[in-house]
Amino acid sequence: MNLFDGFSMLTELYEIQTAEGYFNSPKRDTTAYFDLFFRKVPDNGGFAIMAGLEQVIEYLKNIKYSEDDLEFLRSKGVGEDFIDYLRNFKFTCDVWAVPEGTPIFPNEPIIKVRGPFVQAQLIETALLMLINQQSLIATKANRLVRAARGTTVAEYGTRRAQGSSQAILGARAAYIGGCSMTSGIIPAKHFGIPAVSTMIHSWVQMFDSEYDAFCEYAKRFPDDCSVVVDTYDTIRSGIPNAIRAFNDVLAPMGKRPVSIRIDSGDITYLSKRARKMLDEAGYPDCDIMASNSLDEYLINDMVSQGAKVDCFIVGERLITSASSPLFSGVYKLCAVEKDGEVVPKINLSENVSKITIPSSKQLYRLFDMSTGKAIADVLTLDGEVIDEGKPYTLFDPDFTWKRKDIDAFVARPLLKKIFDGGKCVYQSPSLEDIREYCEEQINTLWDEVKRFENPHKYYVDLSKELWRVRNRLIEEHKGVVK
Amino acid sequence: MNLFDGFSMLTELYEIQTAEGYFNSPKRDTTAYFDLFFRKVPDNGGFAIMAGLEQVIEYLKNIKYSEDDLEFLRSKGVGEDFIDYLRNFKFTCDVWAVPEGTPIFPNEPIIKVRGPFVQAQLIETALLMLINQQSLIATKANRLVRAARGTTVAEYGTRRAQGSSQAILGARAAYIGGCSMTSGIIPAKHFGIPAVSTMIHSWVQMFDSEYDAFCEYAKRFPDDCSVVVDTYDTIRSGIPNAIRAFNDVLAPMGKRPVSIRIDSGDITYLSKRARKMLDEAGYPDCDIMASNSLDEYLINDMVSQGAKVDCFIVGERLITSASSPLFSGVYKLCAVEKDGEVVPKINLSENVSKITIPSSKQLYRLFDMSTGKAIADVLTLDGEVIDEGKPYTLFDPDFTWKRKDIDAFVARPLLKKIFDGGKCVYQSPSLEDIREYCEEQINTLWDEVKRFENPHKYYVDLSKELWRVRNRLIEEHKGVVK
Repeated sequence: MNLFDGFSMLTELYEIQTAEGYFNSPKRDTTAYFDLFFRKVPDNGGFAIMAGLEQVIEYLKNIKYSEDDLEFLRSKGVGEDFIDYLRNFKFTCDVWAVPEGTPIFPNEPIIKVRGPFVQAQLIETALLMLINQQSLIATKANRLVRAARGTTVAEYGTRRAQGSSQAILGARAAYIGGCSMTSGIIPAKHFGIPAVSTMIHSWVQMFDSEYDAFCEYAKRFPDDCSVVVDTYDTIRSGIPNAIRAFNDVLAPMGKRPVSIRIDSGDITYLSKRARKMLDEAGYPDCDIMASNSLDEYLINDMVSQGAKVDCFIVGERLITSASSPLFSGVYKLCAVEKDGEVVPKINLSENVSKITIPSSKQLYRLFDMSTGKAIADVLTLDGEVIDEGKPYTLFDPDFTWKRKDIDAFVARPLLKKIFDGGKCVYQSPSLEDIREYCEEQINTLWDEVKRFENPHKYYVDLSKELWRVRNRLIEEHKGVVK
Repeated sequence: MNLFDGFSMLTELYEIQTAEGYFNSPKRDTTAYFDLFFRKVPDNGGFAIMAGLEQVIEYLKNIKYSEDDLEFLRSKGVGEDFIDYLRNFKFTCDVWAVPEGTPIFPNEPIIKVRGPFVQAQLIETALLMLINQQSLIATKANRLVRAARGTTVAEYGTRRAQGSSQAILGARAAYIGGCSMTSGIIPAKHFGIPAVSTMIHSWVQMFDSEYDAFCEYAKRFPDDCSVVVDTYDTIRSGIPNAIRAFNDVLAPMGKRPVSIRIDSGDITYLSKRARKMLDEAGYPDCDIMASNSLDEYLINDMVSQGAKVDCFIVGERLITSASSPLFSGVYKLCAVEKDGEVVPKINLSENVSKITIPSSKQLYRLFDMSTGKAIADVLTLDGEVIDEGKPYTLFDPDFTWKRKDIDAFVARPLLKKIFDGGKCVYQSPSLEDIREYCEEQINTLWDEVKRFENPHKYYVDLSKELWRVRNRLIEEHKGVVK
C-alpha cells in the first residue's frame, strides 16, 4: 500500500488559484522564501516534537498531476497554460527542515522553502497537514510517556482515530514520542513498530462462563495469554477465574501468563488488589495492563498513588490528542529575491500574535557546555554566525530590556538541507533512530520546560540584526509613535 | 484514487488473534450478533448525526488479504489454517444500519451485524473507525450550521486535518451536516461538493503595495475576485485598497467583485464597518467572508451581535471537532444463536454506563402524528411490533416510575438491511440526498433537543420485553437485593 496516493491533489482550490495567478503575473519567476512554523504548544505544554518530515519528503519527491486531476481543474476554470505547467510539473525548490524527533517551539521555522513562488505555494497545504498531523501526536505521546515515569505506554487508538491516515501515521508519531507498542497492524507492518495484543470482552461473553472463556484462551494462546478481567466483576469474578485458568491450563503445560487487563472501575485500587491476588497465587510475573480513556493527568495521578500497573494502554485520548486536538502550523511568506537580493516580507495582521518574522533565517539552539542543557533558541538572518568564543546577549524580542548574557555555550544550527534544487539530499533516519534521538534531545531540556503545569517559557530569541529588520518592516507599514 | 486501499488490514492485532482463537475453538460456527452504538454526544449536545455508512459498505464489499499481509500475520504467530481462511475470506454476514444523515442518540444500535463470530469480530475496528470519523464531523458541522442561522458555512480544514483521510472524508461529513462548500480539491472532485476559493495573504505580501496586489488579482480573476483585507490594516488600508481596485480594474471591465475576507481582529465590529464602506462605495453585492478559528459559539455570538457576514469559513475547529474530538462508538456482542434460538449476552463492566443492552433488536423512532416531531426512540426485541393503533407507554429503563403515555403516533423502524448473507442489498443515496434527508430529519427534532446549553435528553427507551431480558441478565450475573 502506498500511504501517499493522491497527495499531489491534497490541496485547496485557493492554492491552485493563487499559483495560477502568479504563473500569469509579472511575478512569475520571482523566488520566494516560506517558513513553516507553529503558533502554540498543544495542552499549554512547554515544547512540541517535530514529526512528519519523512512523509513530507515522500510527498515532495512524488508530486504528479494525473490527466483526471487536470480535467477536474479545467472544469474549475483553470487555464490551459497552467494545466500544461502542472502536467509537466518539476519540483526545483530548496528545502531545509528540523529533523524529526527534535523538540520545537512556537514561531521558529521548522521547515523553510526557497523557490519559484508557484511551486512554493502549491505545496503549502500538504506540508502543513503532514507536519500538523504527526507533530500533534508525537507531542501528546511524549506527555503520556513522561507521566508514566518509566512504565510502558502502548498506543491503542485505531478505532477512535480521525481516519485511516491518522490511525497509521499517528501510530508512527506516537512511537517517535516514546510509546513502546501499537495495537494497529498496518503501523506494525509498515513501520516495524512492536505490536501489542490483549483479550477482547466479546471473547468472555461468548462462553457460558468467564472461567471457560479464560481456559479456552489459555489453551489457544499458551505463550501469549493476556486476559481481560472486568467483564462481570474484577475482584470477585475476573481475577479469581484468571488465576484458576492459569493454574488449571497453563501450569500443567509449564507456561506462565503474560498479563491481565483492567478496563473499568477504579484502576488504582483494583490494580493494587489485583497485584496482591496474583502475587499470592504465585504469579508475580503476570503484568497488569490498564486501559479506559486514559490521559497524562490520569496516568500521573495513578503513578503518584502507587497503582500497580505495568503497561498503560492509551487509545482515543492519544490518537486524537483529545484535550488539545490542533497543531497550529502555518506557512508564511518571509522574503522574496529581487535583483539577487533577499527582500524581507512581513504579515502584520490585526492580531499581534499573528505578526510574522521576516527574512530568510537560520535557527540555532544554544547548549550550556557544562550541563549540556538547552539554554535558548536564536533565530538569525541567513549567513549570520554566532561566535561561540564570545559571550552572547539574549534579549526578549518584545520586551528588549529583558536580557541575559551567556558564555561557554555551543550553538547548533537546527535547519538541515533536505532538498537542493528539487533533489533530495537527505536520508531520513530509521524510526528507531528518530525515537532515540527524540529521547536524547528531550533530555537536554530543563525539567521546568517539561512540566505540565505552567511550564517555563523557553526562550526563542532573535539576533540583533534580525530584530532590526523586523522592527523596520513593522514601522514601515504601521508607523511609530514619534 | 481509491480512498479505501489497505482497509482490510486496518485492524488491530487483538482482533486477528481473537478471530483466530474462535476459528480454532468449538465456538467456530457460532452465529453472533454485534451492535455498534455510541456512548456520548460530542460537545454535550442533544443528538449526533450518522455518517460514514457508504465507506463501511465499500469496505465490507472489498475485504481481501494480500499474500504480503498474510506473510506479516504469519510472522506474528498466526497459524496456517487461519491464514488459509483469511486468504479465501468471504463475507457472509447480515448487516443492518441507520441511514446516513439520521439524528442518532447514545446507546441505540446504529449498525447491527449478524454472522459467524470470526467474521463479525474481524470487521470491528474498521467499522468503528469509519463511523466514528464521519459521525463526529457531521455532528459538529451541523452545530456550526445551526449557529449560523441561515448564513453559509464553508469547510476549510484540510491543512489542520488529522491526516489525509480526515481531510477528505471529513469534508464529506461536513457537507452531510449542512456545510455548503469545501476548500479541498479531492472532496470537491471525488464527492462533487462545491469548491470555494479566496485570496491568500502571501499574494498581498508579494507585491510592492496592497493596492497593486488587489489590482493584479482583479485582472487575473475578474469573475471570481475575492480579496483578503487584513494583511496590514483592515479599515485603514485593506478595504479602501479593495474598493480602489474594484473601481479601477473591475468597473471598467463591467465586472463586480465577489467578496472580501476578514481573517483577524474583532470580526463583528470590522464586518459592520466593512459593510458600510462597501455599501457606500456602491458594492452592496460584495459579500463579506469571515475566518479565524471560528466555532459554533463564536458564530452564535457574532450572529447575535449583528455581524455583517455572508459566509463563515471554518477550518481547524470543524475538521478536528476541536472542542470535542472524540466520537465514542463501540461494538459489542449482544447475542449468540444456540440451537436456532437467540441467546442474549451482556457486558456488565465496573461502570454502570458501560453496561450493554442485550439481544437482537430493532430501533423504532416514534413521531407525533399532529406535529410530525420525534417523541422518543424505542428499542425492541427483534420481531416485536409496536401497535400504532393503541396508546403506548414509554418508561425510563433506569427509573421505571418515570412514564409517559402517548397515542396518535407513527413508529418507524430505523435499522435498514444493508447486507444479506454477505450480499449488499442497499444502494447508498447520493450525497445531495443524504444532506437533504439530514436537514429534514433534524427538523423533526424539538428545539429543546437542538439547543447547545443543557439540551433536553431525548428518550431512548426499551420495550417492556427487552427491559425484562436486560434485567434478568443483570440479576443472573450480579445478584439482586432480596
